[in-house]
Amino acid sequence: MTQENRWELHEKLAADCHRVADSSVGPVLLHRNAAVHWFLIVPRTTCLDLLDLPPDVLQNLLQVGRQINRLLKEELAYPRVNIGALGLLVPQLHLHVVGRRQDDDCWPAPVWGNLSGDAVYAEGELNRVSTLLSRVGFDTDSR
Amino acid sequence: MTQENRWELHEKLAADCHRVADSSVGPVLLHRNAAVHWFLIVPRTTCLDLLDLPPDVLQNLLQVGRQINRLLKEELAYPRVNIGALGLLVPQLHLHVVGRRQDDDCWPAPVWGNLSGDAVYAEGELNRVSTLLSRVGFDTDSR
Repeated sequence: MTQENRWELHEKLAADCHRVADSSVGPVLLHRNAAVHWFLIVPRTTCLDLLDLPPDVLQNLLQVGRQINRLLKEELAYPRVNIGALGLLVPQLHLHVVGRRQDDDCWPAPVWGNLSGDAVYAEGELNRVSTLLSRVGFDTDSR
Repeated sequence: MTQENRWELHEKLAADCHRVADSSVGPVLLHRNAAVHWFLIVPRTTCLDLLDLPPDVLQNLLQVGRQINRLLKEELAYPRVNIGALGLLVPQLHLHVVGRRQDDDCWPAPVWGNLSGDAVYAEGELNRVSTLLSRVGFDTDSR
């Protein structure tokens, strides 16, 4: 059995997020807090820190990140996108790709720990995100 | 005059950090808050968001990030490294590469806005960091 077969999405990520697509490197999640569009890409790896990834895996992960970045800017009209790889509360490596605007819920603070409110996605909005992801080539069948 | 010639380090980054080295992509800074070793790599670009960088520039930036990541882990004994590219208070693109350990000043919170205290680097400690950077190939003459 390979490492990839044994890999499972961390239960806290699964609980905190909608699983909106699969990418070449692993699941693409959307944080349940809908104050901003907050994506997480979770590569199927046991490596914990972004810059410890093998170069080819890092390159593939960032290529997926670029697609999400473009979607946030071109389709969802975010002027800025925040990137983070922290692994403080959830050790499993995940790349945050977060749409930001100056009038959002916590600007100029980072989203982690600073998003107030309990905004959630309506089914229609999740479907819209899924459609956008599908249109740029993501596999959204797993939803 | 090219874009690169016009480029200047943002005054807030210059004020908040020690300029400890130059890399192939731009200055390498060390945040003045010495609670953890908190490096910032500032590529000479007018691009604001990490995933909008041309792929070759991004690759070079991450290569520098890998060197800092290795230095944090192998020389400074940090078990974990946090990565971020936010641009919320300073719009100029900069990549945070931050050494973290579970007994550090703000674990499990991200460093941004959460580092208490006023720990500063003594000259000897700055020299040590400079020596380490120089040993892995960085140009530290600009200090």
